[in-house]
Order: sequence, then structure tokens, then C-alpha cells
Amino acid sequence: MTLCISLAARPSNIGTRFHNYLYDELGLNYIYKAFTTTDLPAAIGGVRALGIRGCAISMPFKEDVIALVDRMDPSATAIDSVNTIVNDDGVLTAYNTDYLAVARLLANHKVSTDHTVLVRGSGGMAKAVVAAVRDSGFRDVTVVARNEEAGRALAELYGFAWQQEVGSSTAGLLINVTPVGMAGPDADEVSFPAAAIEAASVVFDVVALPSETPLIRAARAAGKPVITGAEVIALQAEEQFVLYTGVRPSAEQVAAAGEFSRQG
Amino acid sequence: MTLCISLAARPSNIGTRFHNYLYDELGLNYIYKAFTTTDLPAAIGGVRALGIRGCAISMPFKEDVIALVDRMDPSATAIDSVNTIVNDDGVLTAYNTDYLAVARLLANHKVSTDHTVLVRGSGGMAKAVVAAVRDSGFRDVTVVARNEEAGRALAELYGFAWQQEVGSSTAGLLINVTPVGMAGPDADEVSFPAAAIEAASVVFDVVALPSETPLIRAARAAGKPVITGAEVIALQAEEQFVLYTGVRPSAEQVAAAGEFSRQG
Repeated sequence: MTLCISLAARPSNIGTRFHNYLYDELGLNYIYKAFTTTDLPAAIGGVRALGIRGCAISMPFKEDVIALVDRMDPSATAIDSVNTIVNDDGVLTAYNTDYLAVARLLANHKVSTDHTVLVRGSGGMAKAVVAAVRDSGFRDVTVVARNEEAGRALAELYGFAWQQEVGSSTAGLLINVTPVGMAGPDADEVSFPAAAIEAASVVFDVVALPSETPLIRAARAAGKPVITGAEVIALQAEEQFVLYTGVRPSAEQVAAAGEFSRQG
Repeated sequence: MTLCISLAARPSNIGTRFHNYLYDELGLNYIYKAFTTTDLPAAIGGVRALGIRGCAISMPFKEDVIALVDRMDPSATAIDSVNTIVNDDGVLTAYNTDYLAVARLLANHKVSTDHTVLVRGSGGMAKAVVAAVRDSGFRDVTVVARNEEAGRALAELYGFAWQQEVGSSTAGLLINVTPVGMAGPDADEVSFPAAAIEAASVVFDVVALPSETPLIRAARAAGKPVITGAEVIALQAEEQFVLYTGVRPSAEQVAAAGEFSRQG
């Protein structure tokens, strides 16, 4: 039996349910378990020494873990952030499947790189999105963030512009990476103005809970193609699953596993 | 879900089957998995940092692990050997449940400490037996071992006598801790002469596979009360189980788990 784990300050059971569901479904002799730790170097040393096959990395360990692995995949190097470690006979390789998932969704949905892009947000996931957008070939990108220091820094890191508010700006591709629209205090707020949605060709909301955010609902109502946070979560988890097991589940199996994991 | 593991150069699935059977039977949200490692300090550091609740320690790690734990239970101190680690919020306490099991079996079977004792063997398990015999109050004990250096050292460590062969010696309590009678080249050999068995009051064979060794069969045929290696294995595993979970399974549940584990 092969063990895969997650490491987070506050372990969630979403990944546990997703992976264990697929292990059962595919008849793989694997098990997945969520852990927390107060000693990251010893935890990662334990992953290596115990031959734990895979390790998902969540907040607040995504940067600190870089010094503890043996190899960085370009997906992790692109944003100096790790969310997945694969252990090959004691050699730990770090990946970022959020970055991989965003890049692949833009390609899978055949979003033209000729579009201008507005990205709202300046946190860790925004970094993954902006890097993936740049590496996918988009050239005219503006980072929108209320926090000027974080927003400017993120935009300049990838050679893009920053502005504080969306205002009357429009773009072919709108991407929300703020918590706006997420279950909670801003649950009813739409992260882009109606005029921006109307002017856009594609709308992408990285917020995953609920999967139908106010932005996604507004974009669908305006007849726009959408990419949802649920797709990001499912694809990044699928990429982790493939890295750990070498087996690619079908789209139906991934969808069922995602559905099952959200019920937990 | 709580994880318990084992660490051995060559992982066996006997413990895995024993513990997982009882977790199922008792409805405990635990899982048990066997591991190996080439880096014991990192593996034990990982047990501590990941909050792995319990860790069984097998060859060749039973002595080396002493330097890596935080506290030694008297059962481990008595023989400078660890087979069980319990993790309480990052504090690792080391036990030896082989020692505990031998001591408790002698008490449970009400073996009088007035008996003289012959112990055959000079390996790690023989050390657990001789220490448990001494600490149970037996005073007239002779270690019988072909290897003079190991036999003398073991006997002297606990203040007992050594002799190379059983010869015409007799004792009230005979204990075999050699592989004689174990499945393999010496499977048909009886570890004590018929005259010694005839003169004994209790016969104890620590060899567990098969549970009916030639010595146990000969002792039963001579109408002697016996203690078997299967009892040692079951009780030491039960003690591990109680240390990890705080739950003591019934004798029937332990017997069923032992039966199940040997089928694996």
C-alpha cells in the first residue's frame, strides 16, 4: 500500500476524499491522509525517509518547502511556490499544479492569447494565474488590486501593468482571483462590473466555493463562455493524482471524485 | 483518521493485518501501514512532525532508535531495546511490549517464581525474556547458549549463570527462545530433551511459527502446562494496540485478529 499525504496548517478533507475516491474507483492500492505539522523540515524529511509517495502542500508551507526539496519543476519555479511534492526513491521533486491547471484550462478552452486580460487579485493564487497567463502567451495584461504594494509587485514581476480598481476598464478575458463571491461576507458581490462582463469574450472565476459564483452567474446570463474555480480545483487535483500514481482517470471519474470531495 | 506505522528493514504485513482488523472490528478511525527506511533519524523525526500516533520498531532499528526518542518506559530501559513508540503531541515515548508480554504471561499463567529456570537462547528476544524473568522475581535462572560470548554476556547482565548445552540439566520452567522448532531447517527438532520436559512444571516456547512447535507438542503430550509464542505475539501486539488507541480489545477480538494476521 502506497501512502500520499497533504500538509497544511489547517488540514481539509477535500483532497483526502478526492484521492481516496479515485483510489477505490481505479482499484489502486493507495491511501491518502491529511496531516498538519509544526516542524516542516522534519515533516518533509519524514516524507523522504518513510517513502511517502506524494505530498500536497498548502498554506503556510508553499514557499518554505522550496529549501527542503531536491528538484523544482518549472511549474513551481515560475511562481516560487510549491503545492505538490513527488517522492521518487527519496528524491523529492516540487510542482505547482495550480499553475499547471490554469495554463491547461486556458489552452483547453481555446482562449485566444490575442485577448487583453484583467486579473483581479494579488495573493498567492493570483501569482499562479498571472504567471500562467504570461507563460501561455498573453501580452496585454493588467493586474487589478486594491493593495498597491502587492499589486504593483505582482504586475512588475511578470512585466505587466497594475491599477487599483477595475473602474471602466474592459478586456477580452476577465479573471477573478479575489475572495469576492466566495461563500462568506462578500458572497453576493460580483467581482467585475456588468459593463466589463458585457464587453468580455471569456470570464474566469478562480473562486471555487460555491462553483456558481455571482460572477459566473452574471457571465452565463450574458452568454459568455466561462471557466470556473471548480475546474481549477479538479484539474489541479487530477494533475496531482497523475503525478502520484501515473494513472490518468477519465473526465467522468474526476467529476465524480470532485463531486464526492465537496460533499465531505 | 489517525495513522500508526511500523518500521523494519523488511516490512511484514502481520502487524498491519492485526491492527487494521481491530480498527475495523472496534470502529476506530485509525489506519496502520508498514514502512521501511534507510534514514532512521529522519523517519522518526517524521513520525514526530507528522503526528503519526504510534510506530512499531523491528530489526535492525530496536537499539538505534533509543537516541531518537524523548522518553524511555522501564520496559525498554530493562533491555535497552525498543519495539514500540507512542507519540503524544510530539513527545515520543519508547516501550518494549515483548518484555511486557513475557512478564504478563508468566503472571497470567501463575508460574511460581520458586521454580528454577532454563532459558535457551542469547539473541534480542532472549534478552527480553531473561529480563522479564528476573523482574518477575525468578532467582535461579540459567542461560543456555551455544555462543559462549553472547550467552555469558546475557547471563551476567542480569546476574545469572550460563551453560553451553542443556545436557542433563532440569528446571521447573523451561523457556526456548532459539529458532529451534521454527518452520525451517530445525523444524522437527525439540529444543529441550525429553527428560527435561518430563521434569519440568511449565514449558514456554517463544517460537511462534508454527504455534504448535515440537517442544509445545512434546510438553502437551507429557501433560505439562504450556505458554506459546503465539501468546507472546498476540499479547505484545495487544499491548501496542492499547498504547496507541487507549482501547483494550476483548480476548476473543485479539484471538480473531491474531488468526486473521497469520493468514496474510
